[in-house]
Amino acid sequence: MRISLDRRADRAGRVPLARQIQLHIERLIGQGLLGPGVKLPATRDLARQLGVNRTTVALAYDELVAGGWARAHVGAGTFVAEQVPAGEVARPAAPRFDWTGFLSKSAQVVAADARRRDRGRGPRPGPGLISFAGGMPDSGLFPTDAFRRVLNRVIREEGRELLQYYPARGYPPLREFLAGYLLRFGLEARADEILIVNGSQQGFDLIARTLLDPGDFVAIEQPSYPRAMQVFRAFGAQMLPVPMVAGGLDPDYLERLLERQSPKLVYCQPSAHNPTGLTMTAAARHRLWEVASRHRLPVVEDGFDGTLCYGERAPAPLKALDSAGLVVYIGTFSKILFPGLRLGWIVAAPDLIERLELAKDLADIHTSPLIQAAVYHFCRQRLLDRHQVRVAREYGRRRDALLASLERRMPPGVRWTESQGGFSLLVTLPDGMDAAALLDRAVERGVAFTPGTAFFVDGAGEGTLRLSFSGLATTQIDEGVKRLADAIRESERQPDRGARDRQPSVPLV
Amino acid sequence: MRISLDRRADRAGRVPLARQIQLHIERLIGQGLLGPGVKLPATRDLARQLGVNRTTVALAYDELVAGGWARAHVGAGTFVAEQVPAGEVARPAAPRFDWTGFLSKSAQVVAADARRRDRGRGPRPGPGLISFAGGMPDSGLFPTDAFRRVLNRVIREEGRELLQYYPARGYPPLREFLAGYLLRFGLEARADEILIVNGSQQGFDLIARTLLDPGDFVAIEQPSYPRAMQVFRAFGAQMLPVPMVAGGLDPDYLERLLERQSPKLVYCQPSAHNPTGLTMTAAARHRLWEVASRHRLPVVEDGFDGTLCYGERAPAPLKALDSAGLVVYIGTFSKILFPGLRLGWIVAAPDLIERLELAKDLADIHTSPLIQAAVYHFCRQRLLDRHQVRVAREYGRRRDALLASLERRMPPGVRWTESQGGFSLLVTLPDGMDAAALLDRAVERGVAFTPGTAFFVDGAGEGTLRLSFSGLATTQIDEGVKRLADAIRESERQPDRGARDRQPSVPLV
Repeated sequence: MRISLDRRADRAGRVPLARQIQLHIERLIGQGLLGPGVKLPATRDLARQLGVNRTTVALAYDELVAGGWARAHVGAGTFVAEQVPAGEVARPAAPRFDWTGFLSKSAQVVAADARRRDRGRGPRPGPGLISFAGGMPDSGLFPTDAFRRVLNRVIREEGRELLQYYPARGYPPLREFLAGYLLRFGLEARADEILIVNGSQQGFDLIARTLLDPGDFVAIEQPSYPRAMQVFRAFGAQMLPVPMVAGGLDPDYLERLLERQSPKLVYCQPSAHNPTGLTMTAAARHRLWEVASRHRLPVVEDGFDGTLCYGERAPAPLKALDSAGLVVYIGTFSKILFPGLRLGWIVAAPDLIERLELAKDLADIHTSPLIQAAVYHFCRQRLLDRHQVRVAREYGRRRDALLASLERRMPPGVRWTESQGGFSLLVTLPDGMDAAALLDRAVERGVAFTPGTAFFVDGAGEGTLRLSFSGLATTQIDEGVKRLADAIRESERQPDRGARDRQPSVPLV
Repeated sequence: MRISLDRRADRAGRVPLARQIQLHIERLIGQGLLGPGVKLPATRDLARQLGVNRTTVALAYDELVAGGWARAHVGAGTFVAEQVPAGEVARPAAPRFDWTGFLSKSAQVVAADARRRDRGRGPRPGPGLISFAGGMPDSGLFPTDAFRRVLNRVIREEGRELLQYYPARGYPPLREFLAGYLLRFGLEARADEILIVNGSQQGFDLIARTLLDPGDFVAIEQPSYPRAMQVFRAFGAQMLPVPMVAGGLDPDYLERLLERQSPKLVYCQPSAHNPTGLTMTAAARHRLWEVASRHRLPVVEDGFDGTLCYGERAPAPLKALDSAGLVVYIGTFSKILFPGLRLGWIVAAPDLIERLELAKDLADIHTSPLIQAAVYHFCRQRLLDRHQVRVAREYGRRRDALLASLERRMPPGVRWTESQGGFSLLVTLPDGMDAAALLDRAVERGVAFTPGTAFFVDGAGEGTLRLSFSGLATTQIDEGVKRLADAIRESERQPDRGARDRQPSVPLV
């Protein structure tokens, strides 16, 4: 605490030192700068720091306690009171600088996108609400304790190196492990073709800043993952939507599009597509690769996690077909392990990986090597394999329950995608029904979802919504679908209610 | 491992299945996709996966072992050999896609900067080399074990929440703690004016993308921190250098500059300035704030860490003077605690923090909450305070040793800054001597440093070099200065040697 004292306080008419200290601390408390329960400095320390007598500080503290600003605990010290006295000090109103006119074009695009996203967000989860919003893994399934033990061992054995600055490319054993892990899916990559990043989100960011200039176009399947689109737009790109057929981006539509437009890249999620949960067929993948290759169109393949598939195994990633180094593959541990670690990777041709590494180095120097090493050892001890089997089975059960409930309970005219992977599926409402308006009725009945507009370019998809099954027990799923079906029937009877503005709540992933 | 088999192999003239499997694995090993010592899948698993008889896979493995590609350990499985047989399989040469023409303008700027930076980098540390390059904290002083215990407790008690997605703003208790921590330096900030980021590097990045458009100007003290300049340039800005006087950026020069130019912001390091180690006086800070405020010029204040100061306590940060919300303050745990955690923070006016939070959300969603919580508890248990006292004393000793050695050993004509904080100081060589050329001679004599050009805009500073004292024991420091003084004397006698191109080694921080 740095307090400026008026040293001439001894003379008549000046505020005494103890009173100055008291008023200063009252102001800090009143403005919330010293929070409830915070310990004040020891009188000895503050006196030394201010160069005043210790009794002066003690006097100030006594006054604070007497005024109800603080509590004294003998032997423990003086603490800010839990309740600030009535008539609290207001923060002095200074002419505040207005940042609005100082924002970059990118920040303006980001803000506009955020406003649109917030409109599409669900309500705050209340008690009894069954929420199909979210799209995150169930933290109840996390192998938290196994990870704790691995982390503990890693920091004991390699802590000193892992807490120091580290090369941007990433922890070499993790990159070696990933080379082997990706082979399981048919993707052949050497460790030097892999860059470690903070989740797939940072993957989008590094790719966008390395490849996109303002005014560029990005071809993207429709619907698609909003966070990827937002990043591309933040770097000045415009989206060219490509419809989906047969579980993925329509390669023939893309080819016709390429006759008229020259997008800088195409972004797609061939497996466990968010929001539909669909998987592109092997034939369509070959066709897409053939089109992209012929037109020299870079492909950004969002791999999500090919292991979270239900039923048949997903075909090999596009990157596995990529003999020319045209595909940039993004992978992540966020879905199959822990989102909170923020750990993912990019696979690309060596010369592009070098550029992406430079971007990573400027973005945040490197991803925490401690986290990288812990995940590596977790994988090496086959704990990831075991966890994957367990969660794929559980999420598969939830997905089956959701499909069965939809089949049983939904009124005619409602359609949905047969999710084959990931955490969600997309519902299409009866003609003319608006998902944002439906959300209000649904929440009244105790169920929530994500309106579909966020997944579409330029405000399409009003009649769609995303249901995530990953976070709900099977019994909740059926009850939630029942409530949703009731809300849809009610909307069919009384169609005329607009959507209300809502505050943001959970992050949209 | 995904192997494509030609199922018609039974007919005459086709390659048998076992041979196909063998050749496929030989190719993977030959191309480095299966590394030395990697365990091959169990024959049972691979047979099931490929839909062939187990004996077929066993036969393929026998051939691999016979050919020296693999080793079999009874009961343990089959492993890739440590040495690949001679005449290894070359990766088939495919026409590779050339990414050069696809790079964004930003990526081109970044690449040009990286080439310049690499030229300025020191050699790889060899045995016996005393390196004043680096500028990182000494990992020998890390409180690794104390941190391990805190991390272990945090993951045990809050693991499930900390491993899930988290709000972009950061872990609230850490932000509350920082509000109190910053008060010690006179900086009054509420928790909602603080955003947690991945080290100060990400702070630069988020500020740049939120405030800078291509063609903008950034006023910056000269010399300055290269990584900040690189980020501003990557977002298309041009640097306007402002000379230093009295330990910091010259406010009067800045004011005259503002008559001719309209920079979007000014970047400075008023305390523990990198590379000089100087600290701006209180009077100069007031003057700078007054100039910036009058011209409505946003100030990005790189706080480094005000606690790492030697001798007199540093004056309060510029942000402490900032009644208008014009100063954006960047802080970091990288210098005072662990660089590898990648943990820092930004303090700014609430409306700007909201914009920066949106940028953070798009950049990587959030910083690992596990790391944030661990550091919070580390601080709360006063372990940071104890560590700070310990390292400030030790780094102070090293700084004193360096200053004493320079005084004792340097030939006339060599000058240096009297470092008051941080990890380094700047040496100016006798007129006409080039630091990059000197580095070759110095390395031959067993001492390294960072040539000064990286810290200057547009190739100035050839006659300067940075010495970091943080990573060296005091005895090494004196020996290193002795070698450096010898190299300088030799250069004075034989001035005509150019600098060689060098490969990058340690990250420049």
